[in-house]
Amino acid sequence: MPTAPHLLNPAEKLDWLRLIRSENVGPVTFYQLLARFGSAAAALEALPEIARRGGRDRALTPCSLAAAERELAALDRAGARLIAWGEPGYPPALAAIDDAPPLLSVRGDVPLLQRPAIAVVGARNASANGRRFARDMALQLGQRGLVVVSGLARGIDAAAHQGSMPTGTVAILAGGIDAVYPEENRDLHEAIAEHGALVAEMPVGTVPQARHFPRRNRIISGCALGVLVVEAALRSGSLITARFALEQGREVFAVPGSPLDPRCRGTNDLIRRGAALTETAEDVLAQIETQLKPAPPARRDHVPAVPEPPPSGDGEVDAARRRILERLSPAPVPVDELIRECQLSPALTLNVLLELELAGRLERQPGNLVALL
Amino acid sequence: MPTAPHLLNPAEKLDWLRLIRSENVGPVTFYQLLARFGSAAAALEALPEIARRGGRDRALTPCSLAAAERELAALDRAGARLIAWGEPGYPPALAAIDDAPPLLSVRGDVPLLQRPAIAVVGARNASANGRRFARDMALQLGQRGLVVVSGLARGIDAAAHQGSMPTGTVAILAGGIDAVYPEENRDLHEAIAEHGALVAEMPVGTVPQARHFPRRNRIISGCALGVLVVEAALRSGSLITARFALEQGREVFAVPGSPLDPRCRGTNDLIRRGAALTETAEDVLAQIETQLKPAPPARRDHVPAVPEPPPSGDGEVDAARRRILERLSPAPVPVDELIRECQLSPALTLNVLLELELAGRLERQPGNLVALL
Repeated sequence: MPTAPHLLNPAEKLDWLRLIRSENVGPVTFYQLLARFGSAAAALEALPEIARRGGRDRALTPCSLAAAERELAALDRAGARLIAWGEPGYPPALAAIDDAPPLLSVRGDVPLLQRPAIAVVGARNASANGRRFARDMALQLGQRGLVVVSGLARGIDAAAHQGSMPTGTVAILAGGIDAVYPEENRDLHEAIAEHGALVAEMPVGTVPQARHFPRRNRIISGCALGVLVVEAALRSGSLITARFALEQGREVFAVPGSPLDPRCRGTNDLIRRGAALTETAEDVLAQIETQLKPAPPARRDHVPAVPEPPPSGDGEVDAARRRILERLSPAPVPVDELIRECQLSPALTLNVLLELELAGRLERQPGNLVALL
Repeated sequence: MPTAPHLLNPAEKLDWLRLIRSENVGPVTFYQLLARFGSAAAALEALPEIARRGGRDRALTPCSLAAAERELAALDRAGARLIAWGEPGYPPALAAIDDAPPLLSVRGDVPLLQRPAIAVVGARNASANGRRFARDMALQLGQRGLVVVSGLARGIDAAAHQGSMPTGTVAILAGGIDAVYPEENRDLHEAIAEHGALVAEMPVGTVPQARHFPRRNRIISGCALGVLVVEAALRSGSLITARFALEQGREVFAVPGSPLDPRCRGTNDLIRRGAALTETAEDVLAQIETQLKPAPPARRDHVPAVPEPPPSGDGEVDAARRRILERLSPAPVPVDELIRECQLSPALTLNVLLELELAGRLERQPGNLVALL
C-alpha cells in the first residue's frame, strides 16, 4: 500500500494503469485490491479468479500491457502525463477523498495542483450578470491566492476559467484529456493548457458521455476547499457537485438570486439548506481561511483494506454470497448496514462485494453505498 | 389596570387620550402611570409633581380636556375612530408588544385588524420585478387568509397593498390618520380607507416627519405574525422593521436577490443572519401556520408596574437620582443593567426613571433601554 509522497517506477505505473483500466475496477476497488495483494501486478493476476468467484460467466481479461502502453504514448502525443495517487504532483485535497482517481491525466501547469483551490461552477445557460459575477469572483479569489477549479462547460464554468486565467485556473474534463467539449470552448481549452492545467480521469481519446459528468463533478469538488455555485436550476449538475462537496467535507457557497429567475432556484435552495450565502470574495475567504495552510499528505488508511478471505470452505463463502445477494437490490444500501443485516464478518462481506463488483454484478456509489446492477 | 377585552367609557377614553398626548408621556410610561395610579385621570393629576421631582424647571401642563375633545371631533370629521389598548377592536398581535400604542386612530374596516396578518415591506426605489413579486406574494398570502400590513410608502409597500386589496390590506401611517404621504399614493390611501383599514398612532393632523417612521415601523411588525422584506438596501427602514420584528418575537422573511443589485443587499444580509429565505407564499405559510389560531387576549402583566416610592425621605430619592444620572448617558443602556449597577431597588430606580422621563431628560428606546436626552 502506497504511503505518500513517492514516485512510482515506470513498471509500477504501467501496472496501475492496467489495473484501473480493467473491466469493473473502479477507484474504491482499485485501492482495496492494492491493499490486499500488495501491488497492482499481483492484483492483475488475481482478477480473473476473483471475478469468477463473484459469478461472472465469461472470463475477465485484465487490461493488456500493450493497451496501457498505447495509452501512455497517446498521452505523450497529447502533451499530457499521468500522475498517480500518492505521487508528489497529485492534488492534495483530491487525494483525501475515498474514491480519488488512482491516476490522473494532466496537461499544463502541474504545480498549480498543489495550491489551495476553490471550485466555481454553475448553469450553462447562465445570465450575462451571472457570467460577469463568476468572472469577477474568480479574479478576486485568484488575487487572494486561490486556484480556481471548474468544469469547462458553457456559461458559469467558462467565465470562472476566464476570470482566473491570470492567477491560476484548472479545468476538470469529463472525457479524455484531448476531448474538447463543448466545441465552442476549443480556444479556452487550449488557453488553459497553456496558462493553467487540464485534468482528466478517463483515458485519452474518450468522448464525454452523460454518465461521465457526475464522476467528473466529484473531482471538481474533491480538488477544492469549497464549491461556489453561481446560478443553478433545481436538479442541475451543479447541485450534484455541491452534494459531493458536502460528502467530502468541503464548504458549499451559493450566490442568491431572484425567485423570479429559475436559474437561481438551485442556489437559493442550497442557501436554505445551509450553504453559505455568498455575495463577495470575502464571504468565501472568511469560511476557508483556516484551511489555507497546506494539509499533511493524505494516506489511504481510511479505505478499508480487504483482508484475505478467512480460511473457510467454499461452502461458507457461497452461503455468505447468497445471503448478501438476497439483501442487495438496485436501490443503493450502505456497506455498513449490509454487514450488520447479514450478520457476517466484515472481511467476508467485503470479499464477496469485491468479487461481485469484478464480476460486473455490483456498482459502488459515493458514500460507501453499493447497488445491484 | 385594564384587563382585555373591555370598552372604555367615553370619559375614560378622553382621559387616556389626554394622558398619551401629554408632553414626555410615551407608551411605556403611559402603562406604568396607569398601573401606579389606577386610572388615567389620577395619573394626569400627578404628572406635574412627578416631572418636577425629575428636575423639570418649567411646569408640565398635561394635555387639556379641550384639546382632547378637539382631536376626537377632528377624528370624527376624518371618518376615523379611536380604539384603546384592551378594547375588542384593538389588533391582538399588536396588543402583545411592550410599547403598544395606548390609542390607535382607525379608519375603514376595523374587523380586519382582528385577523392574522403578515407584514410585507421593502424598498421605495424597488425594481419592477420586486414590485411584481410583492404584489403577487400579497395576493397569494391574502388568498390563504392572511391580512397584509404595510406602510403605504412608494415601491414595495404600495405594491403589497395593491396585491392584497381584494383580500384585506392594512396601512400603518407615520403621520395622522388624515395625512396622505407620499402625495402620489393619494388614490391608494383612499382605496385602502374604503376596502381595507388605515391605522395611525399620531394625532389627526400630524404631518409625518423623519422621527415618526421608526415608531410607525414597530407597529407594522407588531401587528403581524411575521415581516416579509422584499428588496431592501443596507441601512434602510425595512431593516429597522425587521429588527423590531425580532425584538417582538415575530418571524422575519427575506427575498434573496442578486449581489449585483444594491436593493438586495439588505435582504441577503437578513438571510445571512438567520431570516427565512423566501421564494414563495408557501415558504411564509410553512413558518407561521402553527400561529394561525387566535391568540389569547394580551395582558399588560409584562409591563413592570411602578410601585409607590418607598416611604423614604427626599434625601434617599435625591441620592438615587444622582447615582442614576451619573450612570446615564446619550448611549442607551438596559434598565436591568442600570438597576444592577446602581445597587438600588427596582422600585426606586423605576420611579426615578419615570420622573426623569416626564421631566423630558430621558428617552425610552425599544428593548427596555433608556438614554439621556
